[in-house]
Amino acid sequence: MKLVIGNKNYSSWSLRPWLLAKQAGIPFEEIRVRLLSETFAADVARHSPAGRVPVLVDGDMNVWDSLAICETLAERFPRAQLWPADPKARAHARSICAEMHSGFTNLRNNMPMNVTAVLPGMGWNVAVQRDIDRIATMWTELRQKYASQGPFLFGHFTVADAFYAPVVSRFATYGVRLPEAAKAYADTILNLPAMQEWIDGARAEHDFLADDEPYRTALDEETLVVANHAANQ
Amino acid sequence: MKLVIGNKNYSSWSLRPWLLAKQAGIPFEEIRVRLLSETFAADVARHSPAGRVPVLVDGDMNVWDSLAICETLAERFPRAQLWPADPKARAHARSICAEMHSGFTNLRNNMPMNVTAVLPGMGWNVAVQRDIDRIATMWTELRQKYASQGPFLFGHFTVADAFYAPVVSRFATYGVRLPEAAKAYADTILNLPAMQEWIDGARAEHDFLADDEPYRTALDEETLVVANHAANQ
Ligand SMILES: N[C@@H](CCC(=O)N[C@@H](CS)C(=O)NCC(=O)O)C(=O)O
Ligand SMILES: N[C@@H](CCC(=O)N[C@@H](CS)C(=O)NCC(=O)O)C(=O)O
Repeated sequence: MKLVIGNKNYSSWSLRPWLLAKQAGIPFEEIRVRLLSETFAADVARHSPAGRVPVLVDGDMNVWDSLAICETLAERFPRAQLWPADPKARAHARSICAEMHSGFTNLRNNMPMNVTAVLPGMGWNVAVQRDIDRIATMWTELRQKYASQGPFLFGHFTVADAFYAPVVSRFATYGVRLPEAAKAYADTILNLPAMQEWIDGARAEHDFLADDEPYRTALDEETLVVANHAANQ
Repeated sequence: MKLVIGNKNYSSWSLRPWLLAKQAGIPFEEIRVRLLSETFAADVARHSPAGRVPVLVDGDMNVWDSLAICETLAERFPRAQLWPADPKARAHARSICAEMHSGFTNLRNNMPMNVTAVLPGMGWNVAVQRDIDRIATMWTELRQKYASQGPFLFGHFTVADAFYAPVVSRFATYGVRLPEAAKAYADTILNLPAMQEWIDGARAEHDFLADDEPYRTALDEETLVVANHAANQ
């Protein structure tokens, strides 16, 4: 099984299935394509007609789009319980994943994922805060409900956690203040070994993509210390 | 089971699970909320924390977002085979549904669904044409591959057809020219009794929402003759 992904620093959609597969202990080969590079279109076209990463290549089956990949992994590895077992909880988990998949555009546009950057306060506006509030409420309610079953949104790690992991990273980068329970959940995700592995990978890239950088003009050393700071703050 | 939907003329996301449930013969009660009305937020908040339609209410289970609803219906009614039975075809179907769910923004922004309007040529630009080309190629290839199994994208009717039904409606409204196989597929969808029922419902609304109307200033009689014209053209 191969997973085609973009830059670890920037590609929020790639992080989702990558983290899910890592957490579930599903072995895969990672194929990285540099976002916005001259060869990106040709590199991706070999794997997907939609022209975007991530793409899962499993033998002669190609699955594109983070959500379709996560559904497919959940089906293919039932013992990993990548969706909650209870049908009602599962429908709830699918609802919040789909909500993320097509929504929170204010947050996504104004606070693009930038794993290694420290940009507290950047991108904030009231529409972004509405997205933040909705997410903080969602996390808080789910943590309350499933507290006895584990530290994740639905107790054990599911697709829902993978789907909100890039939001956790954004909140760290942009120094977003969260209510206590939401902050505790964000820290749980940031401190996962697999998440730290992704962050280390992002740090190792040293790749500055101006089109994904509304708030910086260059990589600077300070921002390379970032993610750990956020994790420990 | 209840399905909360918006205006049939404008709510492309509502059409998807509505058509899927109708095609599968799943009985449901339809709850309509007027988009952009003063009571919209309060009406929807009773069913979903995400504030959008569609929402499926099944006993004490609430599922929001078109894709989560379709996944949930597919799971709950396995005999309807709402996803293709073959795992590879199923992953393919999920890929194109997710691609629709989060993509084709040029098409979606410039040619918003407007079931009863006749607006040939409106909204067209080269970026929109790229979306149209990708969809036409997708439909053509799938129709070629599954021709022997039925008239739909994967042979029999699946979530994928429900997901592309609003695109079929847009192509009719905006008079988009399609290659032969794609046109034949679009006609198959437009002529479904359930699709005609939706179109009749849209026609009966006589509701003009200026925010969803980049190309008209008022409803006019001519546009009420629309959808049938498109279906027969
Ligand atoms: N809905 C897709 C979005 C994928 C996406 O937009 N990927 C970005 C990188 S994070 C990409 O490939 N961009 C390149 C392009 O659009 O040309 C998913 O969930 O996988
Ligand atoms: N991703 C959602 C999108 C739902 C959506 O945007 N619905 C529109 C009507 S088609 C809506 O409720 N708009 C009202 C609003 O955003 O306030 C889905 O697939 O269901």
